[in-house]
Amino acid sequence: MLTISFHDQKPLYEQLYNHIRNEIESGKIGPGDKLPSKRALSAHLKISVVTVETAYSLLAAEGYIYSVPGSGYYAERLSGPFRGEKSPIVIPQKPAEREYRYDFRTNQVDTELFPFSVWARLSREILSSGGAELLQTCSGKGVYSLRQAIAEHLRSFRGIEAQPEQIVVGAGGEYLTGLLVQLLGRDKIYGVEEPGYVKTHRVFSANCHKVVPIGLDGSGAKPASLLEQGVQVAHLTPSHHFPLGTVMPATRRHEILSWAYDAEDRYIIEDDYDSDFRFSGKPVPALQSLDCANRVVYLNTFTKSLAPSMRIGYMVVPLGLLDRFDEKLGFYACTVPVFEQLILAEFIRRGHFERHISRMRKRYLSRRDFFIKALETSRLSEILEVKSTNAGMHLLLRSRCGLSERELLDRAAAEDVRVYGLSEYYSFGGVYDGPGCVIAGYSGMSTQQLAQGIAALERAWL
Amino acid sequence: MLTISFHDQKPLYEQLYNHIRNEIESGKIGPGDKLPSKRALSAHLKISVVTVETAYSLLAAEGYIYSVPGSGYYAERLSGPFRGEKSPIVIPQKPAEREYRYDFRTNQVDTELFPFSVWARLSREILSSGGAELLQTCSGKGVYSLRQAIAEHLRSFRGIEAQPEQIVVGAGGEYLTGLLVQLLGRDKIYGVEEPGYVKTHRVFSANCHKVVPIGLDGSGAKPASLLEQGVQVAHLTPSHHFPLGTVMPATRRHEILSWAYDAEDRYIIEDDYDSDFRFSGKPVPALQSLDCANRVVYLNTFTKSLAPSMRIGYMVVPLGLLDRFDEKLGFYACTVPVFEQLILAEFIRRGHFERHISRMRKRYLSRRDFFIKALETSRLSEILEVKSTNAGMHLLLRSRCGLSERELLDRAAAEDVRVYGLSEYYSFGGVYDGPGCVIAGYSGMSTQQLAQGIAALERAWL
Repeated sequence: MLTISFHDQKPLYEQLYNHIRNEIESGKIGPGDKLPSKRALSAHLKISVVTVETAYSLLAAEGYIYSVPGSGYYAERLSGPFRGEKSPIVIPQKPAEREYRYDFRTNQVDTELFPFSVWARLSREILSSGGAELLQTCSGKGVYSLRQAIAEHLRSFRGIEAQPEQIVVGAGGEYLTGLLVQLLGRDKIYGVEEPGYVKTHRVFSANCHKVVPIGLDGSGAKPASLLEQGVQVAHLTPSHHFPLGTVMPATRRHEILSWAYDAEDRYIIEDDYDSDFRFSGKPVPALQSLDCANRVVYLNTFTKSLAPSMRIGYMVVPLGLLDRFDEKLGFYACTVPVFEQLILAEFIRRGHFERHISRMRKRYLSRRDFFIKALETSRLSEILEVKSTNAGMHLLLRSRCGLSERELLDRAAAEDVRVYGLSEYYSFGGVYDGPGCVIAGYSGMSTQQLAQGIAALERAWL
Repeated sequence: MLTISFHDQKPLYEQLYNHIRNEIESGKIGPGDKLPSKRALSAHLKISVVTVETAYSLLAAEGYIYSVPGSGYYAERLSGPFRGEKSPIVIPQKPAEREYRYDFRTNQVDTELFPFSVWARLSREILSSGGAELLQTCSGKGVYSLRQAIAEHLRSFRGIEAQPEQIVVGAGGEYLTGLLVQLLGRDKIYGVEEPGYVKTHRVFSANCHKVVPIGLDGSGAKPASLLEQGVQVAHLTPSHHFPLGTVMPATRRHEILSWAYDAEDRYIIEDDYDSDFRFSGKPVPALQSLDCANRVVYLNTFTKSLAPSMRIGYMVVPLGLLDRFDEKLGFYACTVPVFEQLILAEFIRRGHFERHISRMRKRYLSRRDFFIKALETSRLSEILEVKSTNAGMHLLLRSRCGLSERELLDRAAAEDVRVYGLSEYYSFGGVYDGPGCVIAGYSGMSTQQLAQGIAALERAWL
């Protein structure tokens, strides 16, 4: 007869159920074995008949045992391997990535200025309004008030005329890129800039059949390269190329649009990832604002302008693609929490976003000026050319003394400094063949850290 | 000479820049046309020379004009179509979907019990801690504390032993499904239950090459069908099939696992979408908890248990797939805002989630009992068989009087009632050939609405 010690807090029927189930799973009670009668087991274990009945009916309902009328309960034949005793799970720990004392990363955001109190106030306000709207799904394209606020922002700051109906909100640029590939077709040939943001290449590679490199010159993506490679959809960063900093001039913009117009179903994905942080002059108008044939999809996120943890991006779908979007992708739920969307909508609508961007821009500008000046007045100026651009959050440091990229990186690492080689931004095996050139971001470092980092680089490179 | 009226609030240089840019874009200033000298234009427009200089240098930087030393500025040749005057954007309005007076939808969540005050308190607490952690990206798999809380919950409530390292948090089940397809391979043959949740079929179709139907019998998915269709990855709902309500018994679970073990690289995606709302007995142990060969990926969301607007889902990746996950998908950023993840982690950790689920379960149970009793005591009982299951948020109503599904639906619609035909859950052109059967959800309706809805159905069907 079964023996079981009732030792934990769970109801008796559940403990009995678990016990018998384990015996069957592990093969100790074999297929076809008869179970004790309810009455006998209840007497044996000194528990009520109802308890045994409950356990047996659960086991029967879940197919562990079956009853033969007038005879009793029998264990089922469970095909397949038995669970048996599982060994405890051990996850091998990966070696942690090396941490550097001075890391000139390019993807850091200065979080000191984040307006926590405003965000908390809006958050409270919206939660206390507490309607069902907060809890039910919104349109697959996002909450309408947020899309209105974004459309308004784009009109004022990027010269883009878009209706809220064209705006699709989603959980970050990577997610939206995946969505775009579904919209335009996985079988298309996608082009990404070489060099460029390596993650962009990875996202496209994970989502579509063929990804090819787009060559660059001093004006950005080359139309000839688009043709040579047979690109059908081009991912471009015309406002500010990463990492070279090129701003695509108007003539080239028109050439690129002409390329798109020259064949059916050619599209441009305009990634405007850091357009909010141009430091002088007026931001270049978006390519989307020049497009008159529905061929440019505009893509941006709040990663740089608010926080990377926010995971809110958006795209402007050209009018001519809206029906296709609704038909192919209309079934998807929006991937951003409604609550977050409502807060952000109010944040933009009430002007907080604009004020925040403006404070951030000043902060980055002064840090950039400090960084450039500190480099120029350091002894590094003897061996380096500092190439800064009008936007972005990093500088290019180009060797004038014959040090190769590898040497620059290795020597810096020996002094516990991390800078980034231009070669790291090549995804297709292309090679940067100019003089050694590294990239140094400054957005996540204080002026003190920048100064100390420069001193360490002097020790490394001189 | 240019004429321009400075009428808005923007800086003069910017207004001038915009004006000239528009003239060039629209072709009014042609390619090669000479622009007025800075001095002349400044005198003409009665603005300072510096203002004109600023506008010209912006235009030159962006490639609209070029300077010929000693001669002056000329308009560039912009290839491609000119922007010209855009006509105002008009988005055609889609006809709104018909709204019904009584809509027995199955995807509604009762939001009345949502613990707004607890959520607001946690939210305040976390925002006021205000660290940089809130703003920086987390691991691609999600915030560790949330993954710990989920692992703990799964251990206590679903018999699943999983390490936080195996848990991947993402923006909802649809997103995670897309990720899984990338993990297991787009070229695999994916099987989905027929009938089943139609959106599941759409998500797979949008993400992989071949999706096939899995046939069902009274125990759920048929192993024979998996073989016939050549399925390599099976999406299943063993705890509670939607919409039929079948709970897969233990024997069938073992057969299904055997199927997976019988060949390399066969996997099961266990969608446990409403396991928190089983109304009697103990929840069936998850298929994942029986798997001893790394072939089951467990998938769940907080859509039913918290709110559809939340967009937080998670999956348990089997140990054997972790390296492949890191290698193929490790570069993706997590799609859920860090802030939301931290709140949810605390919500679970402090027991609020368990209490909330338990309140919701009671609420749904009493509403379900009311609904069943009201149907049974109504005159509808003469012509309908009410099929209820141990879980889920809907009932199946099967005609015993020869009315077809079409007739049931049309007559209901004529009384302004929406119920759902079983045929709507077939994605592969399969046809339900039993007696007319409709599905009626009750989770979003009050008892009063349910009673009135039943009265309307009496008018419709009797």
